[in-house]
Amino acid sequence: MWRSSRISRRLIPTLAATSLLLLGCGSEPRELSWTPPPDGEPTRLTELPLTGVTIDDAFWAPRIETNRTRTLPHTLAQLEETGSVANFDIASGMAKGEFSEPYWADSDVYKWLQGASYHLALDRDPELEAQVDEIIAKIAAAQQSDGYLNTHVQLVAPRKRWKNLGFYHEMYSAGHMFEGAAAHFEATGKRTFLDVATKFADNIDSVFGPGKRNGIPGHEEIELGLVDLYRVTGEERYLRLAEFFLDGRGQQPSVFEREYELLSPTARESFLGSTVSVRGLHNRLYRRDPEKFDTSYAQDHLPVREQTEAVGHAVRATYLYSAMADVVYETGDPGLMDALVKLNDNVSLRRMYLTGGIGPSAHNEGFEKDYDLPNQSAYQETCATVGMALWNHRMLKLSGDGRYADVAEQALYNSFLGGVSLEGSTFCYANPMQTSGRFKRSPWFSVPCCPSTIVRTFPRLGKYIYSQGQEKDDLWVNLYIASTAKATIREREVSFRLSTEYPWKGDIRLEPELESPLAFTVHLRVPGWAESHSLRLNGQQVRAAESKGYLHIDREWSPGDTIELSLSMEIERVEAHPNVVSNRGKVALRRGPLIYSIEQADNASDLDRIVLPPDSPLGGGFEPGLLGGVYVISAKGLARDPDSWGGRLYRARASGGGEEIEIRAVPYAFWGNRGVGKMMVWLDTVF
Amino acid sequence: MWRSSRISRRLIPTLAATSLLLLGCGSEPRELSWTPPPDGEPTRLTELPLTGVTIDDAFWAPRIETNRTRTLPHTLAQLEETGSVANFDIASGMAKGEFSEPYWADSDVYKWLQGASYHLALDRDPELEAQVDEIIAKIAAAQQSDGYLNTHVQLVAPRKRWKNLGFYHEMYSAGHMFEGAAAHFEATGKRTFLDVATKFADNIDSVFGPGKRNGIPGHEEIELGLVDLYRVTGEERYLRLAEFFLDGRGQQPSVFEREYELLSPTARESFLGSTVSVRGLHNRLYRRDPEKFDTSYAQDHLPVREQTEAVGHAVRATYLYSAMADVVYETGDPGLMDALVKLNDNVSLRRMYLTGGIGPSAHNEGFEKDYDLPNQSAYQETCATVGMALWNHRMLKLSGDGRYADVAEQALYNSFLGGVSLEGSTFCYANPMQTSGRFKRSPWFSVPCCPSTIVRTFPRLGKYIYSQGQEKDDLWVNLYIASTAKATIREREVSFRLSTEYPWKGDIRLEPELESPLAFTVHLRVPGWAESHSLRLNGQQVRAAESKGYLHIDREWSPGDTIELSLSMEIERVEAHPNVVSNRGKVALRRGPLIYSIEQADNASDLDRIVLPPDSPLGGGFEPGLLGGVYVISAKGLARDPDSWGGRLYRARASGGGEEIEIRAVPYAFWGNRGVGKMMVWLDTVF
Repeated sequence: MWRSSRISRRLIPTLAATSLLLLGCGSEPRELSWTPPPDGEPTRLTELPLTGVTIDDAFWAPRIETNRTRTLPHTLAQLEETGSVANFDIASGMAKGEFSEPYWADSDVYKWLQGASYHLALDRDPELEAQVDEIIAKIAAAQQSDGYLNTHVQLVAPRKRWKNLGFYHEMYSAGHMFEGAAAHFEATGKRTFLDVATKFADNIDSVFGPGKRNGIPGHEEIELGLVDLYRVTGEERYLRLAEFFLDGRGQQPSVFEREYELLSPTARESFLGSTVSVRGLHNRLYRRDPEKFDTSYAQDHLPVREQTEAVGHAVRATYLYSAMADVVYETGDPGLMDALVKLNDNVSLRRMYLTGGIGPSAHNEGFEKDYDLPNQSAYQETCATVGMALWNHRMLKLSGDGRYADVAEQALYNSFLGGVSLEGSTFCYANPMQTSGRFKRSPWFSVPCCPSTIVRTFPRLGKYIYSQGQEKDDLWVNLYIASTAKATIREREVSFRLSTEYPWKGDIRLEPELESPLAFTVHLRVPGWAESHSLRLNGQQVRAAESKGYLHIDREWSPGDTIELSLSMEIERVEAHPNVVSNRGKVALRRGPLIYSIEQADNASDLDRIVLPPDSPLGGGFEPGLLGGVYVISAKGLARDPDSWGGRLYRARASGGGEEIEIRAVPYAFWGNRGVGKMMVWLDTVF
Repeated sequence: MWRSSRISRRLIPTLAATSLLLLGCGSEPRELSWTPPPDGEPTRLTELPLTGVTIDDAFWAPRIETNRTRTLPHTLAQLEETGSVANFDIASGMAKGEFSEPYWADSDVYKWLQGASYHLALDRDPELEAQVDEIIAKIAAAQQSDGYLNTHVQLVAPRKRWKNLGFYHEMYSAGHMFEGAAAHFEATGKRTFLDVATKFADNIDSVFGPGKRNGIPGHEEIELGLVDLYRVTGEERYLRLAEFFLDGRGQQPSVFEREYELLSPTARESFLGSTVSVRGLHNRLYRRDPEKFDTSYAQDHLPVREQTEAVGHAVRATYLYSAMADVVYETGDPGLMDALVKLNDNVSLRRMYLTGGIGPSAHNEGFEKDYDLPNQSAYQETCATVGMALWNHRMLKLSGDGRYADVAEQALYNSFLGGVSLEGSTFCYANPMQTSGRFKRSPWFSVPCCPSTIVRTFPRLGKYIYSQGQEKDDLWVNLYIASTAKATIREREVSFRLSTEYPWKGDIRLEPELESPLAFTVHLRVPGWAESHSLRLNGQQVRAAESKGYLHIDREWSPGDTIELSLSMEIERVEAHPNVVSNRGKVALRRGPLIYSIEQADNASDLDRIVLPPDSPLGGGFEPGLLGGVYVISAKGLARDPDSWGGRLYRARASGGGEEIEIRAVPYAFWGNRGVGKMMVWLDTVF
């Protein structure tokens, strides 16, 4: 058992240097050799294709299955009921009717198709494929002859095509189309959706770009969609257009200001004050002064290469940063990479909830100041949490640095799972860190972005687990999710079996399936939360080189070889940086990657009365009958007794007091699945 | 030395029963006899006239003098500069011009006259009296022939007289006129201002009342002004009109709703949307729905006799409750008294800052929910604090219960004094309990009610110190402010000398000046904050009966007799009821009646880093050179060290740590007199 520094290494970028594990106790383990890559050599990890990864994990597999059997049909039914699918029929002339809000309704259909396509990649269910084909046919029929496609503009404001880049979501919806089309092509090999996408992309490329029109989207998304399209088609114009949109941000005056200045007073009125839903919100957010855009809301305050602080709407921000990472991945652009590292430090070290979510404020659905992380009013939008996973997974691919995998894991295992109920048809838009007992999940929202985001996240999970370097002479294991994987290593097909009961237990076993020996490196992530770990090769304790949060095992592997990693998984009290005013004097409970919360359902005392003293012992155990099986943390706590105050409002401080109680905590990922009641993550430590 | 219960008795109404002091240690003291009044006999304490009380207190006298020499002229200059005085000349035709906002501008002039009149009662300075006479002449000249007087309505909306009771402040301003006129008459014996007031009151009485028009003021104040006028003139119609206005609240639908319903759509637009300053604020506050009044804002949600919870705008609330108490005082009305006791419990036991102020929210300048007492955003308007003193002083007069004197003292010694700088020409409108270092006092406000409220509070302080029962066979000492007082007891003139260095020391000496023996009772208040006290008669320790927070010394007094009360004055940590979420895990420091705050000026560590552990020793001493002389509390504390976090946002909880520091605290009453910097009242006790 090797004890690493108590300091959580991954959150200190400067400590992420190569270091050998120190010997703890017991007999001298064999030391495995490893030659680190030359300094300055860029890292570019690739994902394994979804079709090559089969998840049979006790924790995740049932959730992915619920996504397929419940969330996918529920979401499609809602999209149909609210008219989002019919919008395409009306635009194509196949049906009569009026456009149904929201104005970005197309995007939610595209996101649903993306999720459905990933499921088809995992299991080519003919019934689902028929549904997908039918919707794609409606979309194709609605496309205009020049390739343009946006049902809102076509049906409501045909003369305003590309005239309202700040508010209309034409490019945002296009980006989701491109992502969805690329996923559909990869899953099925069919070009039906991809052809629509490339035709629309060509149309956009004919309007915008160097020497053509200057413009950027009000809500980023098209940039990463264009890179997806580039990767699938090899068409470089799409990559260049993504770069053009990225570098178009931060002009003075902004694209949106100039767009607005060009309007007549009457046009301005209808531009800002139309009846389109939630337009009012956008108006307020863009404009601090009546006629002044707040460009930071859309990350348009500075050129992206000069941005160092995450600002504005959180979902927009993560989609922007993800696109920047995609471009770095393709081009190696050092200026964009520098900005990304600074932006990621700013978010993960100053602006992120313990549960991996971001964007504390409902006011702008986004960021406020450093360390501003309120609990009860935490906005922490589900889409922004998924944005954090998308962005940090990309950062991992660009760096091989486990600190980014830590953040992606933190987001996926906590805030993301909290965003959807166990039964799969109710969702959180905002994800509070504490509730007064009225908050509950909803089956749908007037701004329905989050359900389709959830739909497209579960089936893609396999992409996060494994990576490979450019040389294809290795395997990286980033997340510990029980699965089998097929990889091509040194031009040979190798299968791997990853067995674990993570996140309930810290023991992980990896078995390459080989018919003859093969030399390659296995990189195993040591999560930042793990206080210690040990490694066994074929049952023998060994030690391996460790850098940037990964153990590197470089050897010739033989048939039957097994590598076992044990991560210590103790219950810990976590404290927040003292600048986080809302968490002063409080602790949260963590075990492994899971952040815990207390719920009224498990606790006899009113949660608002509960105190967890600093030195009270913590225990726990796995309870198979609870919430489908969870590890429950229990602790001796105290309950404040307001009755002892005799009605007074203030008194001379009395020491001690309070009733001794048993506190029970369950993972935040599972909160809110037993009716409506209070919940809190951060617990007081004193009266 | 007698140790009373550790529980602060005054804050538990049910414990306010008669009890004898228990013997502590030392020789058996002589027990003084006292016969409590028969149960159910109403208490009606009277004040001593201002002219009979001369304050020479080291703590208060310099502040009262600053009020006379600095605040009074500064405020008049501002009222002249902003046109509030000129409004009267324009209304009378003596000058040309337009009405100057705010629309209640008249009231601030009346409040200034009230303060100036109190100063004339203390010291009939001819120069000040000439200023007062001149302004009264302007007011008299502006009065219309039928007695009506409101320069805003006369100059801006002459056809809207009494047409906008919800928003216009005609009755509010009238009430301040009546208070000011009564004070002026009492101080000078001149009828000049009083005649204007009675003529206006007669005009109002001719319009409103049973069988006449149904109406109430949107901002209460006229009711207590009418009682003042009744007391000075003996004219019962004024008392009846006050009762009519009180009992007119809480109609369904409300007076204001009906007033609005009668308007044409166009008139509604101008009614709600006029350019009159801060109209927008009032519109929002009155109407939760676009066309629905929020009647609780103006305490118009229920008949006053059915109100049990303090709601809405805090200044309005305290003026209403003060008027209810005035009517009870004159009529003994038991229904109003029941409501007052419940309302006072609600405020002092659930909705009051430790500093005696009320109204946490800027949104409605008033009350929110029970225990909702945020620190940084504390609104705690200075006028509302003075309203608490006015109301609780009246409750004392109706009950002889020291718990109300405790609250009045708490408000006057803390939040009220915090409302004005030591030099006397800058003021707080809102009084935060914590600042981030940008907040500072202002010389004036666009809503300038607070400066004239301060002006009229300092010189009236003598009225709070002493009282007498209806039989005039006793003297009550409510506040310990060094002074001499002249009282008529059993039809003999008796002078008293009260000597003390309160609030810095807890020793109080009272000496009646008698030429021959006289039997009467002295009632000495034992403040709720005092953990213990001792009593000496002519140097000999004695014990006296105690009930409702007063010691009762009933005896025949002889020339040269001296009674000495010693109140223990220890530094205490105070904690708030656990339902006050913003103060969980925090303590405040209190010594005697003074609540302390830490200021950046006295502390090397950033205040946001300071922690005061529960068991660290507290000390202190009087520092004559600081802030004109204050007792400074010092403590061993810890400073959080954010640098030790190495940039991380979360970490496993580390015990201990922090730099040992010296914390210095000064009374909240003196905060903000040394430049701009952070301040806080409630201190964290753990990291």
